[in-house]
Amino acid sequence: MPFRSPPENAILEKIHRSFRVAPRGRNARASRNSLPLGMGDDAALFAPSPGCQTILTCDWFLQGTHFLRDKHSADAVGWKSLARAVSDIAAMGGTPRCFLLSLALPQDATSAWLDAFLVGLRRAAKRFACPLAGGDTTKRREILINITVIGEVASGRALRRDAANPGDFIYVSGRLGAAQQGLQRLRKRRGAAGRANPRLQKHLYPEPRLALAAWLSKKRLATAAMDLSDGLSTDLPRLCSASGVGAIIDATSLPTVPRATASPSQAMNLALNGGDDYELLFTVPRNKAKKIPANFAGIPMTKIGKITKSRKVLLSGPSGLPKILRPQGWDPFL
Amino acid sequence: MPFRSPPENAILEKIHRSFRVAPRGRNARASRNSLPLGMGDDAALFAPSPGCQTILTCDWFLQGTHFLRDKHSADAVGWKSLARAVSDIAAMGGTPRCFLLSLALPQDATSAWLDAFLVGLRRAAKRFACPLAGGDTTKRREILINITVIGEVASGRALRRDAANPGDFIYVSGRLGAAQQGLQRLRKRRGAAGRANPRLQKHLYPEPRLALAAWLSKKRLATAAMDLSDGLSTDLPRLCSASGVGAIIDATSLPTVPRATASPSQAMNLALNGGDDYELLFTVPRNKAKKIPANFAGIPMTKIGKITKSRKVLLSGPSGLPKILRPQGWDPFL
Repeated sequence: MPFRSPPENAILEKIHRSFRVAPRGRNARASRNSLPLGMGDDAALFAPSPGCQTILTCDWFLQGTHFLRDKHSADAVGWKSLARAVSDIAAMGGTPRCFLLSLALPQDATSAWLDAFLVGLRRAAKRFACPLAGGDTTKRREILINITVIGEVASGRALRRDAANPGDFIYVSGRLGAAQQGLQRLRKRRGAAGRANPRLQKHLYPEPRLALAAWLSKKRLATAAMDLSDGLSTDLPRLCSASGVGAIIDATSLPTVPRATASPSQAMNLALNGGDDYELLFTVPRNKAKKIPANFAGIPMTKIGKITKSRKVLLSGPSGLPKILRPQGWDPFL
Repeated sequence: MPFRSPPENAILEKIHRSFRVAPRGRNARASRNSLPLGMGDDAALFAPSPGCQTILTCDWFLQGTHFLRDKHSADAVGWKSLARAVSDIAAMGGTPRCFLLSLALPQDATSAWLDAFLVGLRRAAKRFACPLAGGDTTKRREILINITVIGEVASGRALRRDAANPGDFIYVSGRLGAAQQGLQRLRKRRGAAGRANPRLQKHLYPEPRLALAAWLSKKRLATAAMDLSDGLSTDLPRLCSASGVGAIIDATSLPTVPRATASPSQAMNLALNGGDDYELLFTVPRNKAKKIPANFAGIPMTKIGKITKSRKVLLSGPSGLPKILRPQGWDPFL
């Protein structure tokens, strides 16, 4: 006679079924081999690769704080919850290896919503070659997600925040502010958006800069790096503070959203203070700058300023004296 | 001129300050060396030990679901949130190495509550030789905690759930139901309880069975093991299901709470269905059973039944036929 299956077991089984097939990405074989014991035990077992350090990161993704149930499709929530945590692995120059999913759900999200969430999550897991290794589930009035990603990087090759030097050039990948612009558009819409809408793509389905960061680490081109999650004006001071340096940014050089889609001041505000871009911010010694291409795999690389000895973080515009760049990005406690 | 420090940074700094001193436990030196980069970067770096597999586990600890703000002191919340996640590392026969803290707080919990929480958390981190490596913070109406613990175990020596064999004896450590009994007492009290109350100790300050599990792994005595978090009637079927076996439990052998504190039926109900004990449930081949002591470091070891080929999980009492043991422990979706 079979055991009575408690409801929690049914949800766990749905998650397990969804992830039973290993990801087909670049590192699929490595991922399978490195996970001798995945879901279903007290904890997951992971076989570290020789010569590598393990990278550990975790990220909240909470209904009402990080997404809105009526505006963000469950598919997008699944993708983005993993993508933003994987972005922290990219920011270290690493390769994701597996992840843990902590999920708290209201009863009314345990069928259709959960199914669609798992589709988006599974697509992201394949894309980033990052299989599910375990997790925890519970019941809650609102949907709560916490994702831990485990990555690896060759020992001593991690891209840290604390090693920028005065004179280094400061670069960003991609365009800044596009995700925030997508959020503004989404807020004006009625209901959730489909997967295909290109104007919302950057907000709903961010792409962590894994290949770029791994290349910078491998070629030893970057002195420091981080991902832009809270906006340049909030994140750049963090990098400077960790490195004990300052910076001066040339406002006219910032890769903003296209002119046709925003006024110059809106575009500048989005580029400085818009969160959720998951682009890479990195510093390069002056003598290595010529090795940074204008594009990396189709993503523009833009030199936006340089690191200074003085600990101020300044913004210079087309005219007048440089001004202090004040953190006005995303801060959950403001 | 210093940067304006955003409120989130102030909370991060409080957490960092609280954990700046490395734990003084058994593995203090190993822990320090294995964490070349801790808090303050995009992610933490961890140096895996040669010949070991990495153990990964995460656990929710949510206000209103897992603790009550008016009944559970912030100190106990800090201790228990880490202890229960560390218990999953113990359940694998492993040693904790570091943890990640995801914390969502209402504004009114960012000073005194946070301070007391960090005191309890830090004491647990010292006790388990498990330093804080990183995390994520955000603002929320209610206190949400998610803890990821990273542990290690010699390759191939993990205690799994899926390897119990028919004929194995089933053991538990400690007394079952004491944590649930503590919760019942706490619910009847007005306000939160102090640290010293021995009748609430098991509920508020559980001790993961790290040394016992590591010994069972090292001596290759256990075929399967798990920690009892949701109650024997819910957890034993999980072990049996993973191993493709059944079990028969002798009700009269169960190590219940002391007779003086509960009626026989209350004590039996607590032992079968009470959650949160974090005792170890493990199976031992018949020919190794004599190596299991009556006490391990002061904790009673009790043989409670045996694994069967039939996939039923049965409870035999002092009289009558054995009955199916129905899962009636903690299930958040019930």
